[in-house]
Amino acid sequence: MSLARDQIHNFAAGPSPLPQPVLEKAAVGLLNYDGTGIGVCELSHRGKEFKGIIEGAEANLRKLLEIPDNYAVLFSQGGGTTQFSSVFLNLLAYRRLKHASDANYAPPTIDYVVTGSWSSKAYQEAERLSIPPAPGAKPFAEPRIAATTKPAKFTTLPKADEYNFSPEAAYVYYCENETINGVEFPPAGSQSPYAFPFDRVPEGVPIVADYSSSFLSRPIPQIERHAIIYAGAQKNLGPPGVTIVIVRKDLLVDTTEAMKLGGVPAVPIQSEFKTLADNKSLYNTPPVFSIYVSALVLEYLLAERGGIAGIAETNSAKGDALYSALDEAEAKGKLRVVVKEKDARSLMNITFVIEGDREKEFLEGAEARGFRQLKGHRSVGGIRASLYNAVTLDSVKALAEYIKSF
Amino acid sequence: MSLARDQIHNFAAGPSPLPQPVLEKAAVGLLNYDGTGIGVCELSHRGKEFKGIIEGAEANLRKLLEIPDNYAVLFSQGGGTTQFSSVFLNLLAYRRLKHASDANYAPPTIDYVVTGSWSSKAYQEAERLSIPPAPGAKPFAEPRIAATTKPAKFTTLPKADEYNFSPEAAYVYYCENETINGVEFPPAGSQSPYAFPFDRVPEGVPIVADYSSSFLSRPIPQIERHAIIYAGAQKNLGPPGVTIVIVRKDLLVDTTEAMKLGGVPAVPIQSEFKTLADNKSLYNTPPVFSIYVSALVLEYLLAERGGIAGIAETNSAKGDALYSALDEAEAKGKLRVVVKEKDARSLMNITFVIEGDREKEFLEGAEARGFRQLKGHRSVGGIRASLYNAVTLDSVKALAEYIKSF
Repeated sequence: MSLARDQIHNFAAGPSPLPQPVLEKAAVGLLNYDGTGIGVCELSHRGKEFKGIIEGAEANLRKLLEIPDNYAVLFSQGGGTTQFSSVFLNLLAYRRLKHASDANYAPPTIDYVVTGSWSSKAYQEAERLSIPPAPGAKPFAEPRIAATTKPAKFTTLPKADEYNFSPEAAYVYYCENETINGVEFPPAGSQSPYAFPFDRVPEGVPIVADYSSSFLSRPIPQIERHAIIYAGAQKNLGPPGVTIVIVRKDLLVDTTEAMKLGGVPAVPIQSEFKTLADNKSLYNTPPVFSIYVSALVLEYLLAERGGIAGIAETNSAKGDALYSALDEAEAKGKLRVVVKEKDARSLMNITFVIEGDREKEFLEGAEARGFRQLKGHRSVGGIRASLYNAVTLDSVKALAEYIKSF
Repeated sequence: MSLARDQIHNFAAGPSPLPQPVLEKAAVGLLNYDGTGIGVCELSHRGKEFKGIIEGAEANLRKLLEIPDNYAVLFSQGGGTTQFSSVFLNLLAYRRLKHASDANYAPPTIDYVVTGSWSSKAYQEAERLSIPPAPGAKPFAEPRIAATTKPAKFTTLPKADEYNFSPEAAYVYYCENETINGVEFPPAGSQSPYAFPFDRVPEGVPIVADYSSSFLSRPIPQIERHAIIYAGAQKNLGPPGVTIVIVRKDLLVDTTEAMKLGGVPAVPIQSEFKTLADNKSLYNTPPVFSIYVSALVLEYLLAERGGIAGIAETNSAKGDALYSALDEAEAKGKLRVVVKEKDARSLMNITFVIEGDREKEFLEGAEARGFRQLKGHRSVGGIRASLYNAVTLDSVKALAEYIKSF
């Protein structure tokens, strides 16, 4: 059966839905960008048209998130997974250069906060890349876990006193929203016991945050407390293929110089943030279509969604609508919400388990009502509803009604 | 002035034009893929729809190029530039594992054939990544130049007896088509003095080819003489963002194991070919739209363009039409063709210099006739017409007529 878009409510965990007006505009631009007679994927990435697109995207992103001027905004390739290594490689090079004259340079610790699958993977990659260049030699770094909720199967967040930061780490790393179970840090600077404890991080230690799945869903109140914030596009920004990296400009270092000093791993040139920054994200051919659609989304968010305040308000209303329906159904014994603590609950990925062997029935009923992509991640099962920016409050209310009536 | 697509002849060097029917189909799929009510960028990359797209693309690519079964086909991210490092890292890990029990493992040589800007960059990246892990330690490898046309400013190719291969290199590397001056190796196995001398490469040494700018323009007669062939999509395959890597399956190695042996650089996990192969190119979220459009292009090439034989025939006719017009104009002293030897001339990128200070006049006349993106690369200037697959014979004939009449 062929379905129209307006018969569908897409709760995909990513790639996620995109706003209808954006896709309509992109469909035109695909064949003829701005009256040039050339489609957007057929334009030179060094021509004035594409330059306008990428510069406009950066300006709108800076405006939406109030990104300070001392941060570079990079459009990189390879997804969030690539940033697991890029962040490590660039920050170790930065560290090495800071200690350039140190003849006994020692491998630094790195503090990972592990609250789910994505931060686990980032930590594992740091461990892999730390393997010494020869058996018995010093490792390149000593990644460690500063806090984790693994014992609670990643269904909550650490409290402030559960963090154990080392005094001189190369950096501290956390993932703002974990998509699989749906745990999300309260907004930076919040008074919640689950807020990320910026004030406990030793002074001068760079803080890195993976914002992939909550980027642009609400303001980021403490950007300036971060060294690097990165986010894959495919949740709230655009189609997969582009990853935004917001990096404090003093961290843009020449990794080749660090490699020559020794004690750091080799850095592939396309992973070097400085190269990307020096070339305004056009060191090589960028993923032009992903950037173009992202640019359209950013315009749309500013013009039609009331900027970041308007987006945050809608997302908050969506979360309230769904969680209150779930809490009500849980009280009746129909289902179980995975994340108990309200302050640790994600507004982007909401997970629950249907009780009494009725999951299949729930999913079939959902499918019949046009609800799509509700199955939980294959590693944990259950149900997951992702409420990214392009999911409307009406879609969420429809799902909430279905849950109440189930 | 707003222009229709059919008023334009786009000779861009990449991103390059895409076939009109493909773009029309993609514009529909962007909002509603195959009647699902969900756009192609909004589908899960792990769902059956996207699985169908990527598997179909691989099957059609194998069919078009007759890729043997003992080769994996990977859809990777980061462009050709990323392969400069990935090829190096994976083949050094392969080499290290082959010599796993060698307590005195010595850095291997690597033989680069440098015939233009792209192979120069690949060579430079190998040099960077070879930097020893500590001052005074052994480098990871010793890249060298096995042949180069730099003294001729990259306007020709080496002859067979000008190659100086080392006996046990980790690999031999060449770039099949250099886009800036427009030199292209005659088809593999050809009897031309400029053909790549496969039979001079010492037995067992893996051969790597960057096919980015000539991929799918004609058959690749000697795939099985290569270890790795890679190509960025944005010339003949699809929008930028995806890079095809065709790699012999025995070269898919666990780079972590090699790192533990020591003597090889750290390999970011997303650069490991084995990880990509084991996960059928879905280790992380792939650039779904670039892969989708590539899949449509492959279908179109098979169904509407007579497969690779039909494409090659058209490209040959396009090259003949333009080069004969240029040779005629050169005889009249109007211009100078950059590449003199016919066997070294590219069918994809054709470069020439207008004589007598008339370049501006030439470009203005071209612009008025709907010819676009004819300016040469900023590093060399002059004129460059790129004749990728989606440039029609009619467009090339129109340009040839303009040149004759100029």
